[in-house]
Amino acid sequence: MGSPACDDRLVASLRGASTPLFRVMEVIKAAHDMTVSGADLAVGGIKHLEVGQPSTGAPRLALDAARDSLDACARGETTLGYTVAEGVDPLRERIARHYRDRYGVEDVDADAVVVTTGSSAAFILSFVAAFDPGDRVAIASPGYPCYRNILEALGCEVVSIPVDASTDYQPTPALLNAFLAAKPIRGLIVASPSNPTGTVLTRAQLFALHEWCHERGAWFVSDEIYHQIEYGEDRATTALETPNGPRDCAIVINSFSKYHCMTGWRVGWCVVPPRLRDAMRALQQNLFINAPTIAQHAATAAFDCDDELVKHVDRYRVNREILLRGLPKAGFAKLSSAGGAYYIYADVSDMTDDSVGLCKRILETTGVACVPGVDFDRERGLKFVRFSFCDSTETVTEAVRVLIEKVDEWRVGG
Amino acid sequence: MGSPACDDRLVASLRGASTPLFRVMEVIKAAHDMTVSGADLAVGGIKHLEVGQPSTGAPRLALDAARDSLDACARGETTLGYTVAEGVDPLRERIARHYRDRYGVEDVDADAVVVTTGSSAAFILSFVAAFDPGDRVAIASPGYPCYRNILEALGCEVVSIPVDASTDYQPTPALLNAFLAAKPIRGLIVASPSNPTGTVLTRAQLFALHEWCHERGAWFVSDEIYHQIEYGEDRATTALETPNGPRDCAIVINSFSKYHCMTGWRVGWCVVPPRLRDAMRALQQNLFINAPTIAQHAATAAFDCDDELVKHVDRYRVNREILLRGLPKAGFAKLSSAGGAYYIYADVSDMTDDSVGLCKRILETTGVACVPGVDFDRERGLKFVRFSFCDSTETVTEAVRVLIEKVDEWRVGG
Repeated sequence: MGSPACDDRLVASLRGASTPLFRVMEVIKAAHDMTVSGADLAVGGIKHLEVGQPSTGAPRLALDAARDSLDACARGETTLGYTVAEGVDPLRERIARHYRDRYGVEDVDADAVVVTTGSSAAFILSFVAAFDPGDRVAIASPGYPCYRNILEALGCEVVSIPVDASTDYQPTPALLNAFLAAKPIRGLIVASPSNPTGTVLTRAQLFALHEWCHERGAWFVSDEIYHQIEYGEDRATTALETPNGPRDCAIVINSFSKYHCMTGWRVGWCVVPPRLRDAMRALQQNLFINAPTIAQHAATAAFDCDDELVKHVDRYRVNREILLRGLPKAGFAKLSSAGGAYYIYADVSDMTDDSVGLCKRILETTGVACVPGVDFDRERGLKFVRFSFCDSTETVTEAVRVLIEKVDEWRVGG
Repeated sequence: MGSPACDDRLVASLRGASTPLFRVMEVIKAAHDMTVSGADLAVGGIKHLEVGQPSTGAPRLALDAARDSLDACARGETTLGYTVAEGVDPLRERIARHYRDRYGVEDVDADAVVVTTGSSAAFILSFVAAFDPGDRVAIASPGYPCYRNILEALGCEVVSIPVDASTDYQPTPALLNAFLAAKPIRGLIVASPSNPTGTVLTRAQLFALHEWCHERGAWFVSDEIYHQIEYGEDRATTALETPNGPRDCAIVINSFSKYHCMTGWRVGWCVVPPRLRDAMRALQQNLFINAPTIAQHAATAAFDCDDELVKHVDRYRVNREILLRGLPKAGFAKLSSAGGAYYIYADVSDMTDDSVGLCKRILETTGVACVPGVDFDRERGLKFVRFSFCDSTETVTEAVRVLIEKVDEWRVGG
């Protein structure tokens, strides 16, 4: 069908064609294929250390609130229709209270909160609201791959700041000065705890990065979606805690996906300074309309589920200890500090320069699914592997055992 | 706080600052304020002819499916976690079957379907996948305002094709030739039935526009979200029905928000030609991850609810007749044909050149909430008003009665 001239022009956009698929999906698919074919039985079943989401569902009160919403809809008392763009008031007020209760920050009010369709939508909204095409935006590498891919889809120029174990895989003012001296940036994105390394900025470190942006008129986007999944003595710091009040440049992003175990519900939020609020509201109306209504109701209730949710974090803490002690015995000697989230990032450069192949061999010989670093670091990812530990303690224990037992098998060819 | 230099630079992006808020939200808020203050009592209550969503909730089987999902999650059988980016297989297969069942189109398979977070996400995904910054994309004016606002946020150049009653408020090849002769376009967006006019393209008209794009190597984006809400003898035509098979340039967008009454669930879909699928999948992973999981399960069941849903359409049909007969008696003589959707677009240029003020007077004197055309047509919207008729027949009947009764009051000052 169609003339050649037509066919030539009907191609994906440059930005569409250049957006990469995640390699983690290939690992998930390979693990799934082994399960379907029965090949997993030969390796004692798949140990899922590849996925980035909790193995447990939403907490009970959140499920109850969702069920109540369905019942009210069945009775004709609500339609579960559109909400106002910023989200329902009870949820926005509960989020504002969260900053008082957990962080002692008094001056976040509900007007500052935009409820979003997961953190994904919060990134899109805040990037469109704050950055124009051509703007330079800095991210740490390794980092969450969607930062770069969303920014590039929106026409921004992404500046990678390579980070490593010497700075706990986090950017520092010195690194920013070294890499960004030539041309100014419009924004910096920081994640603490980080994916894929789990590393956590201290208060002083976070504030220093925040001030660095403040002094340069750059937006400071603080990804805090792994907050409350923390293993150190101190809780993670929000950018809103900055002494003398949050800076005008701070955009804080959070989600119910991780601590609250509500990944598939697609609900998160951002806290936005006054000068971005009109743009955020208009963009929300146009790009998303509103976050899913039933998820907004469930999320409101999820704030009252700490008794249930801290047990998951306790389990992650045990799992983390098992991995930090066990992985070195399997040859993974250089591990990220993993003070939060549920990830350990392993430098495998002494084993291989092809972590894609390494992960494939590990999966096939041991049934342990883990992911190469290539999603998180385009330059050095072939020398890194990410282990996720949000599954059961049995899974993590067995994974370590078999990695050690079969080390000679999976390291062959490295 | 902060240096002046900092403050100067910390402003919203140009694209963020230039995205308009919807005027319909002001009408909704003014109506809400009247209800809260009790001012609505003086005008016999608010008659809601401003909203773009059904007054009824999701059909019963969809609610049941959602409840089953919650129960399975409570039992630990599922986490309602992330799904694969394209959506769960049962829903994608059910959507593919829908094209066979309703339209007799046999060659749409599940691989062509991407389940999206409402049509909003389908527009963002397909625009990013198909268009680069600077690409020219044509839309009809009046039209759904998000087309323009999303395209502009993504850096595209929007070309408006002014349409009026002479072509049933739809573009034609002749109009396209007249307005787009100077420079080629990369895509055309068409909606049938249309918002805000409800007008429906005939099969021949739709195919002609499709061919026009095909011959010029432009993407043909067919917004079909009001399909199945139709009042003519013939059902609306999908772009996938094009003789000899759908063209490579066709992108079809649909949603569960309108016919299936699931606005707040945020679930829709698009049907994508092979050469866009890799880009769509990668962009979905990066921009949205997946459509809300519980909404995907509910939507799958919603396909089996026609018995319940056609009753809503029957009600809209009655409401439409009441408005088409009654509005002229209130002076609204020039009405769109409204063969589908639940909107009538009234040309009020013989009454006023300020439909914003007109709608305000109508609301205050009669309690009838309707919206000025400015959201839909930046150039001529002040001469148009949109009436929505998806509320109850009682509401629509009373609205017409009071508009006629108080015509001398609300027309004062026009």
